[in-house]
Amino acid sequence: MVLSIFKCISCDKEYDIQEIRYCCECGDLLEVIHDLSQSLPSPNDWKKSLDNQMAVIAFRRYQALLFPALPGNKIITLNEGDTPLYDVSHHFPHFSSIKLKHEGMNPTLSFKDRGMVSGISWANYLGCENVICASTGDTSAAMAAYAGSAPNMKGIVLLPKGKISPEQLAQPISFGAVTVGIETDFDGCMKLVQQLTEKHNIYLLNSMNSVRIEGQKAIGIETLHQLNWQVPDWFVIPVGNAGNISALGKGLRELFELGIIDKLPRLAGIQTEGASPLYESYQNCYSELVPKKAKPTKASAIQIGDPVSYKKAVRELKYFNGVVEAVTEAELMDWKAQIDKLGISICPNSAVAVAGAMKLNENGIIKETEDVVVILTAHGSKFSNASVEYHGDESNPSANHTHTVSPNLEELESLLNL
Amino acid sequence: MVLSIFKCISCDKEYDIQEIRYCCECGDLLEVIHDLSQSLPSPNDWKKSLDNQMAVIAFRRYQALLFPALPGNKIITLNEGDTPLYDVSHHFPHFSSIKLKHEGMNPTLSFKDRGMVSGISWANYLGCENVICASTGDTSAAMAAYAGSAPNMKGIVLLPKGKISPEQLAQPISFGAVTVGIETDFDGCMKLVQQLTEKHNIYLLNSMNSVRIEGQKAIGIETLHQLNWQVPDWFVIPVGNAGNISALGKGLRELFELGIIDKLPRLAGIQTEGASPLYESYQNCYSELVPKKAKPTKASAIQIGDPVSYKKAVRELKYFNGVVEAVTEAELMDWKAQIDKLGISICPNSAVAVAGAMKLNENGIIKETEDVVVILTAHGSKFSNASVEYHGDESNPSANHTHTVSPNLEELESLLNL
Repeated sequence: MVLSIFKCISCDKEYDIQEIRYCCECGDLLEVIHDLSQSLPSPNDWKKSLDNQMAVIAFRRYQALLFPALPGNKIITLNEGDTPLYDVSHHFPHFSSIKLKHEGMNPTLSFKDRGMVSGISWANYLGCENVICASTGDTSAAMAAYAGSAPNMKGIVLLPKGKISPEQLAQPISFGAVTVGIETDFDGCMKLVQQLTEKHNIYLLNSMNSVRIEGQKAIGIETLHQLNWQVPDWFVIPVGNAGNISALGKGLRELFELGIIDKLPRLAGIQTEGASPLYESYQNCYSELVPKKAKPTKASAIQIGDPVSYKKAVRELKYFNGVVEAVTEAELMDWKAQIDKLGISICPNSAVAVAGAMKLNENGIIKETEDVVVILTAHGSKFSNASVEYHGDESNPSANHTHTVSPNLEELESLLNL
Repeated sequence: MVLSIFKCISCDKEYDIQEIRYCCECGDLLEVIHDLSQSLPSPNDWKKSLDNQMAVIAFRRYQALLFPALPGNKIITLNEGDTPLYDVSHHFPHFSSIKLKHEGMNPTLSFKDRGMVSGISWANYLGCENVICASTGDTSAAMAAYAGSAPNMKGIVLLPKGKISPEQLAQPISFGAVTVGIETDFDGCMKLVQQLTEKHNIYLLNSMNSVRIEGQKAIGIETLHQLNWQVPDWFVIPVGNAGNISALGKGLRELFELGIIDKLPRLAGIQTEGASPLYESYQNCYSELVPKKAKPTKASAIQIGDPVSYKKAVRELKYFNGVVEAVTEAELMDWKAQIDKLGISICPNSAVAVAGAMKLNENGIIKETEDVVVILTAHGSKFSNASVEYHGDESNPSANHTHTVSPNLEELESLLNL
């Protein structure tokens, strides 16, 4: 009769889902396991019932699969989800089809909102009035926004002082989180987060929190719903902390085990060359993770040398016969420019996935006869400066430089070849 | 048998809809008039049929009402629309209800995408391979993106050189528009746009183009669909060039005349005190417009002293028993901060409308028993600097300032009152 539990991914020890707990006693990550035969006794009826629910928010629509233990009246939502699935196949005829799932079209402009619905809603259900994370980017933005929209909840964001840009600061500050700059680095912030949450009734929302993964499963599930449950051959996704690929895999796996889809796609995780611990492990038959200091990359959200969800990611990659690829800075910025030019504004991390899909296609891993879905993770408008810088350098292959003329019709006509 | 025509708003002269024409021979604005009895012979059946179409993009879903003359296979869309309607009534009990329609959740993060669907699709139908606008802001972003997504279409953006920020430049550049800085001011750019479009086959997409208005009607129509066609007492909307309030009015008027809604809402147009020509006209019983140099405002998109769509706006305001209000810079920035804190990230222009709704409520114009919908026009992430600046000044009433501590648990606990 128990609907959901926490279970350790290493030693299989189980814990009550109502317990506030982020890691197993053995130190490894937990994951949430649902008894889907209870919440979803008739998968095919459920699938049919979804067709009349497009006006219902995504988390609620798929909740029987995402997080059945959460009471519906505790959901804190900002209308995340129902993001576009752009078909760009006509631009890339060397794929059977290629579609881009744009998670940047969520309320705080990144996919993190998908996980925060479940994380903040669960905190709300548990009665936690304080939530916390250490993050310089999309996570703190999403946590601050969802905490702001919840009744009686305070968001707390810890940041390494002096190391973040005004652009990164703007979101947590304006969403009303208590924003504290600490005279330390990111690891120092994370240590304080753990100390605070162990000692006080403050709910931790960094990516080690497995409840967030459950909300993020909606990305893959919604994509398949949009595809009328026709499974593509590949899902391609950027990998930093490896939470998103873990969530994608878990959601698709559950759909398959329920018989809602009848085929498994393959997964491709893409990293940057300077921050590629998963790629290196993959190349050595998933040898043990060797944490490394990640090199700076324009894809700052995935500049991670010691991914928290490494083990979960490897499990999903093995289950889905996956591959891992790495791309250069030049490749990712050029692909960002090329996708932006289609009117689809993407962040550098999303471009990592696009560049990876293209590279795998060139290398013959993704075949010309195959259908591909690429997961885009955030909106390009969070990275205006990166765009202006790229297009300002005429040596970049896809640069679109500005022109200057005097206010003279003939001069303008000549510039425009009229 | 003619489905749609252009008609002058002053002298009633009519023109073929297939003609590329932006103004009447008399010099005044045109508007598009449809024979809705042809495109929508049975309004109630149409209304019923919409309920199963939530997975269809908004422009296509409402096309019989928006722009029936446009062939469906010519639509260029980036999946705009289906934006959230946030119910924030529990935060503001002095309204019967207050809901925020967030048009910042469109692909280029502003409501301009709604008009560009119809504008660019019409250009595509007419076979125009070049489209142009003079704009430093959301219009150029939207035009560039939609032109980028169209097959064989080049977007051209004219900008006053040296007067725009990297943030404003990033969107048209990255969407691939030919972006030309002209050594002149905005009016000089606009003059060149008109000369070029008169002489060459280049389609003009500045706001004098009445085709864009038709797409923008979707904002009001979609809101009413989300409200299950229950008409609120008020729609509150920011006013700059006055195109958006004109579109809102035209769409609602057509719904009413078809019997799809059975009540007229009232309209409230809100300006900033330094850019308030419509407000001044309203106060003098809609006396003739006195163009003025608009004063700088954080709500830069509505810093307009001579609104193009003034006459259309006045017509709608009179039809809907409307009012016009003006707000100060302090009021708009404070309301931006207060809405952001609910997790809803808004631009300063949107905040003008929120501040106006609150002011009209305080003044007893909007009553405590009345239902209000406020139109938000763009996403706050386009204005990171404005947020950081506001919260950096502790004298601002809703400022959320950052704290700094050393990496010490006790110090942090004390700061957080734990």
